[in-house]
Amino acid sequence: MFLLQINVNKSVCLDWQSAGRLNWTVNQQVNLLPSDLIDPSGFRLIPLEVKHPQGYTFVRVRMDPSEEYKMNHKRRGVALIFNQKRFKEPLAERRGSDADRENLKERLEDLNFEVTPYNDLTKKEMVCKLERASKNSHEDDDCFVCVFLSHGEKDNIYAKDDMISIQDIMSFFKGDACRSLVGKPKIFIIQACRGEKFDNPVTAMCDDDDVLGGNAEQTVEEKAVLNTLPAGADFLMCYSVAEGYFSFRHIEHGSWYIQDLCEVLKQYGTSLEFTELLTLVNRKVSMRSTSNVNAKKQVPCFASMLTKKLYFRAKNE
Amino acid sequence: MFLLQINVNKSVCLDWQSAGRLNWTVNQQVNLLPSDLIDPSGFRLIPLEVKHPQGYTFVRVRMDPSEEYKMNHKRRGVALIFNQKRFKEPLAERRGSDADRENLKERLEDLNFEVTPYNDLTKKEMVCKLERASKNSHEDDDCFVCVFLSHGEKDNIYAKDDMISIQDIMSFFKGDACRSLVGKPKIFIIQACRGEKFDNPVTAMCDDDDVLGGNAEQTVEEKAVLNTLPAGADFLMCYSVAEGYFSFRHIEHGSWYIQDLCEVLKQYGTSLEFTELLTLVNRKVSMRSTSNVNAKKQVPCFASMLTKKLYFRAKNE
Repeated sequence: MFLLQINVNKSVCLDWQSAGRLNWTVNQQVNLLPSDLIDPSGFRLIPLEVKHPQGYTFVRVRMDPSEEYKMNHKRRGVALIFNQKRFKEPLAERRGSDADRENLKERLEDLNFEVTPYNDLTKKEMVCKLERASKNSHEDDDCFVCVFLSHGEKDNIYAKDDMISIQDIMSFFKGDACRSLVGKPKIFIIQACRGEKFDNPVTAMCDDDDVLGGNAEQTVEEKAVLNTLPAGADFLMCYSVAEGYFSFRHIEHGSWYIQDLCEVLKQYGTSLEFTELLTLVNRKVSMRSTSNVNAKKQVPCFASMLTKKLYFRAKNE
Repeated sequence: MFLLQINVNKSVCLDWQSAGRLNWTVNQQVNLLPSDLIDPSGFRLIPLEVKHPQGYTFVRVRMDPSEEYKMNHKRRGVALIFNQKRFKEPLAERRGSDADRENLKERLEDLNFEVTPYNDLTKKEMVCKLERASKNSHEDDDCFVCVFLSHGEKDNIYAKDDMISIQDIMSFFKGDACRSLVGKPKIFIIQACRGEKFDNPVTAMCDDDDVLGGNAEQTVEEKAVLNTLPAGADFLMCYSVAEGYFSFRHIEHGSWYIQDLCEVLKQYGTSLEFTELLTLVNRKVSMRSTSNVNAKKQVPCFASMLTKKLYFRAKNE
């Protein structure tokens, strides 16, 4: 016998295989026999240990497509922002990154996250913060968010002095390492492209305040480098740019991706399902382009291992 | 000046920056100046070449989160299924793959796709079919689907005799190579894990007809190997399993992922938004597990570069 957590927010219709029908709200851990079967009608047969004269019995649970992650814990959760602006030689300073940090901090606080920004950490410091976050209890939290604003290279993210692999970062928050986040959404937002020795300004558009040019050449182009698809149940990986495309960052207003993400969060953060919101960000960013002859596009990407809908509706204080 | 396609299915509200308000349906190509700006209220400022006394003028287009891909072309589109069951030594035969092929063919035909299954192609044959598909006109099609049922290795998919990289496969359908699919969803469904010399049967559950054991050991375990995140605007990559997890295939009934995908397609294919449907598949598959002591889980993953909602509502014949 093993344990399986069934989180169902709303009442679900459970049909007893033999003994008729029962409306029941399941939101506690139930003990399951090691069998978990689906019948052809799309019902899931689950043998529940229930107080029933015949002992174990089957119930049929309909998989509800509108099921949502439980987001009514005491707290929304922790959001870490690793803002890496300055690096050891030869990587260029990421001007505009502070604007991204401030923008995201405000938006995540609006969504009731407890936001902690870190600036220019070394690899050792970064690992230390990640490890501490994974060891803390998230028992009372809805979910977890971790943001990286940095340069990247071959599936690694740069700390001030050295790189750390996205795999290593994620492994701190997988089930075995962080029990209190099991079954909860773990969201990683990654704005990281190949850093060059010098910022290469390009003529770009869409920076909301320089209508028709002006200081448009204060936009820096970076090449996408992260193409790993790290995995974990209930993880959501939000990448600023997909492989083969370019990423743009305005040296005052921040990166296109974080700008657009924040704008959409401000407008729809508490109302839209989160992957719907990210789809809108994909659209917003991919509508931007540079104004030179071979106009370059930025196409963001998100990889979802989520199993339910994710809403950040306003929390009742 | 360059061209930008604005596809808006429904009428959008366009506010003239100075000259009042106008309700207008935009569904044709419009000529744009190389500027494309967003104002703080979330409106997108687009300089439209319109017949207006002052020449060029700005309109503000609200980004509509409920916007959907246009799915009312003459045809739904083509769906290719590459069913690779037998291989050159030493890879094991993928028993159960024919069941996956039949299951998917039926479901995709229900969604009005013109399905072409291929069996045990060599790399040369596979490339030839892909190239031909990319050269055909998809002008009258809503979208494009391509399915791979095979073994995989390091971001490659096995044909009968050799491997082909997912990058190479995708590049046939990117904008420059396939103009008639630009702006349309390009969906890749990939069931491919590291093949072993011999099938290793495991004791598993959840095969819908072997309730409580029986022929449960006819399930084969494979290890996830694909971890590339290939990129392209309007691409949707659906992976049977995320890195670090295991994939399971019943030698008669097919793989868990395709079984569950087909079941959900049957139930919700024409009603649910497609990424919502894939989230439900993530849940269904990840609720399954093997019954041995160290129960292994399968966690699917999808990577979305979609920019709008995707519905396969019934087509009017």
